[in-house]
Amino acid sequence: MSSNPDFELIASRLRRVPYHQWLGVDVKSVGDGLVVLSMPWRAEFVSNPDAGYTHGGVLATLIDIAGDFAVITKVGRGVPTVDLRVDFHRATRGGTLLATGQIVKMGKSFAVADARIEDESGALIASGRGVYWCGS
Amino acid sequence: MSSNPDFELIASRLRRVPYHQWLGVDVKSVGDGLVVLSMPWRAEFVSNPDAGYTHGGVLATLIDIAGDFAVITKVGRGVPTVDLRVDFHRATRGGTLLATGQIVKMGKSFAVADARIEDESGALIASGRGVYWCGS
Amino acid sequence: MSSNPDFELIASRLRRVPYHQWLGVDVKSVGDGLVVLSMPWRAEFVSNPDAGYTHGGVLATLIDIAGDFAVITKVGRGVPTVDLRVDFHRATRGGTLLATGQIVKMGKSFAVADARIEDESGALIASGRGVYWCGS
Amino acid sequence: MSSNPDFELIASRLRRVPYHQWLGVDVKSVGDGLVVLSMPWRAEFVSNPDAGYTHGGVLATLIDIAGDFAVITKVGRGVPTVDLRVDFHRATRGGTLLATGQIVKMGKSFAVADARIEDESGALIASGRGVYWCGS
Repeated sequence: MSSNPDFELIASRLRRVPYHQWLGVDVKSVGDGLVVLSMPWRAEFVSNPDAGYTHGGVLATLIDIAGDFAVITKVGRGVPTVDLRVDFHRATRGGTLLATGQIVKMGKSFAVADARIEDESGALIASGRGVYWCGS
Repeated sequence: MSSNPDFELIASRLRRVPYHQWLGVDVKSVGDGLVVLSMPWRAEFVSNPDAGYTHGGVLATLIDIAGDFAVITKVGRGVPTVDLRVDFHRATRGGTLLATGQIVKMGKSFAVADARIEDESGALIASGRGVYWCGS
Repeated sequence: MSSNPDFELIASRLRRVPYHQWLGVDVKSVGDGLVVLSMPWRAEFVSNPDAGYTHGGVLATLIDIAGDFAVITKVGRGVPTVDLRVDFHRATRGGTLLATGQIVKMGKSFAVADARIEDESGALIASGRGVYWCGS
Repeated sequence: MSSNPDFELIASRLRRVPYHQWLGVDVKSVGDGLVVLSMPWRAEFVSNPDAGYTHGGVLATLIDIAGDFAVITKVGRGVPTVDLRVDFHRATRGGTLLATGQIVKMGKSFAVADARIEDESGALIASGRGVYWCGS
């Protein structure tokens, strides 16, 4: 757990979102323009009932949240997503996923953040990028 | 409801996915390289607990499913998503969302499909595109 | 050629860009949030010297210009591209390409426009989307 | 200049493309799944004749080439681009641009590579990602 002074602020902001509560997403560490999130597996996440793989929509959501909260470490308030890009690298099932979000470019009106999801063994599951609106 | 002969096949394939069941996504109509899906609102979808807006991850998921099933109307089996692009046009809350997926290009190894989400008033909420793997 | 009153304004704006002059891009018609552009082939465009295919970068550029000028029909001034997505559907060589740009969503701060490129036979060569900054 | 044994192979492959010759793109170094390219300025690159900024299409092209050649270091032959994402971070004019391409995920059928463009001062000008087809 990070000792970063913003950790509690970022974590409480993330935890108060109903969809995050349902997903079980939580904050592991917070840096300057950087977050690491964790998300345990849920049976409802399954895409293929035979293979038990996690649905791509769940991964896309985690990419979006990780990028968003990387930007929130800088701007200190919620920032809507303008657009999102996600690449799916490996099927995954079960276990806790870790997502790292990191700012690529912080502008006046919008910010770009990259995010990547790894499983517990460190294998890269998905990665992508969001553009977030920081203007007024 | 469509009278398209593939409707029951496509609908049963969509409905057997646990995550689709939780989301409440269902098939409204099926064409050749085309699907229309519906998704009613759930309290868990909320992003901003004050404003009650639907989370972008829910919209991204619906874009992915609509594009995926547009391709499934052609190939008749599940096709993994290679990558996904989503643009968020308007905040939405409550009500049933309609998502239309349509093939842009059907290739031998992968297919590109566009998708758009509208609310019950016909306002465009989000749109995007997925690339789906059809190879062996 | 369009009789749209903005045609000359849009065409002169497009033609005064040095890179457009080198590419040979020109305006064929202008509508409300819509443009059709043409681009003849040049020997320098070639990617593969054996097959003579047009370079993907040339196609990506044409997608960007078509989306940009679709937005310019609405805002009447240059709008920088925030981000660009391009899908390459078919290899092409020789001949004039036609590119259609069309606004998907016109917002206060940015606009989203889709674009598609066809060859002279009407085959879809590439398609994509740009986000353009319209704020101040 | 890299002493990597593949350097001459990669460089000669890049240099024999007519569009690369016109752009003036060249290889600075080659690694395992990694390339650094350089591109000097040309007067034809200009987008805005008043400000002299480089056209976004030129930057998008350089992102595509850098990602493509990162993959070529692994597969040793030309790989077509499936799709491309580019984010434009800062306007640039004049001077030589440096582009770094790096593989994110090398799969059997396609590869994902990230690329970033910096100016001579090290400022980040644009970044993005391509998906490249490596199948048969």
